[in-house]
Formats: sequence, structure tokens, C-alpha cells
Amino acid sequence: MAKGIHHVGLAVNSVDEVASFLEEIFEAKLTDYQMETPEFFSRMVQVGQGLFELLEPRGENGLIERFLKANGEGIHHVSILIDDLDKMIEICEKKGMRVLGRRFIHPKSAHGVLIELVPANELQRG
Amino acid sequence: MAKGIHHVGLAVNSVDEVASFLEEIFEAKLTDYQMETPEFFSRMVQVGQGLFELLEPRGENGLIERFLKANGEGIHHVSILIDDLDKMIEICEKKGMRVLGRRFIHPKSAHGVLIELVPANELQRG
Repeated sequence: MAKGIHHVGLAVNSVDEVASFLEEIFEAKLTDYQMETPEFFSRMVQVGQGLFELLEPRGENGLIERFLKANGEGIHHVSILIDDLDKMIEICEKKGMRVLGRRFIHPKSAHGVLIELVPANELQRG
Repeated sequence: MAKGIHHVGLAVNSVDEVASFLEEIFEAKLTDYQMETPEFFSRMVQVGQGLFELLEPRGENGLIERFLKANGEGIHHVSILIDDLDKMIEICEKKGMRVLGRRFIHPKSAHGVLIELVPANELQRG
């Protein structure tokens, strides 16, 4: 069962630039969370009780770079906090939906929205 | 000051279809909120503690129809709950940002993201 929206992911040219923008306008604060992968670098920014993940491209033709080339900066995905990942994957697969890496529901299976599934127990571990 | 993410707005071909999809996958529930305008019909759907606004086109070449033609279904905007709309508008205008109808920050002023400003006192009135 879904618990709520965990965060909204934004594809950006520069994490620093967008973090500063959100700080100036909304008094956003960078959290300690960050992730470096071959395809993107990301940091989580808190806006009130809400979270935005800022994703900056890494590597040649990685997934965020491709997104930026196709769309420019903008909203990349929405993450939904769920309590049971196995059950959620089972529901999606039974419906023939495309799930990527047990983590993302493909936009083609979700009315154009890239949905990240964030299991609640993952946050508790952190 | 920002209090959090109020909702994520999705441009959809059919509110009913996407509400059913979100119900089947995430046990989402339609709320009582709905809005009918010459350019769109919208309903708010609750996913756990989170909210999605589903926007279905109305009229000839209205804003949601134009979005769907350009992008297909997908994430349309993100709404941020704030406590002082006047102050927020003032901050945005001082920075030369484009604010539409004292309600939306234009994506060109916000790294490609259409941001709706939802004043907290508006919800208390409802």
C-alpha cells in the first residue's frame, strides 16, 4: 500500500544552481543524502516537509543527459513511498506493466509518468 | 516560507481512467475536490498522504490539450504549499521571474518546472 509522495525528481544541468534557486525562493535546505553513479549525481533538497531530488548528468549519453537533451530541465520522476515492494512488483507484473530494476515503473505503463517505488524499510535502514 | 509539496499535477486524457489506474496500483482514493474550467476538468486523488491532481482537457486548444499534444500524458506541474503568497510573489518578481495569475511560476523562470503556489490559508477556508 502507498504511504505518500516521497519526493519529486528534477533533471537539472547543475545541482548547485538549482539548490541555490530553491533556497532563495523557498528556503530549501540540502539534506545529507547524495548519490553518485556513472549516469548521474543527485542530491536531495528539503522544501518545507517536501523533498526534491536534483539529478545532474554524469558520463557520456547517460540517462539524465539524454533526458535533458530531449526535454531540457524539468520534472523527471515522482517517487511513491510504499510499504511492500514485493507485493507492488507482483501487482505491476500481473498487469503486464514494465518495471525497471525493481524500482521504476516505466512511463509507458503509467500514463507518461516515471514512478519510482521507494520501500519504507529502506528509509528506516538509512 | 514553503511548507511542503501539496500535490503533483498530471495531464491525462481521462481522469476516470487514471484515477482507476492509481486505485488499482496504489489504492488511491478520489477526494471531493474537483474543478471545471473552460480549459480543463480536474480531480484530486489521494495516494497515501500524497495528492495527485488529474487534469483532463476541456475546450478547443485549451492549456491541457496543448500540453498533451506537445508532450503526451505526464507530469504537468508541482504545487508547493506556502504560508505567505504576497511575500512569495514579491520575492519572485524582485528576481524578475515570471509569475502567472499570482499562482504559477513559469517553467522558464524555474528550471523547466511549472510550480503552482498554494497558500495554506486557502486550504483552511475550504
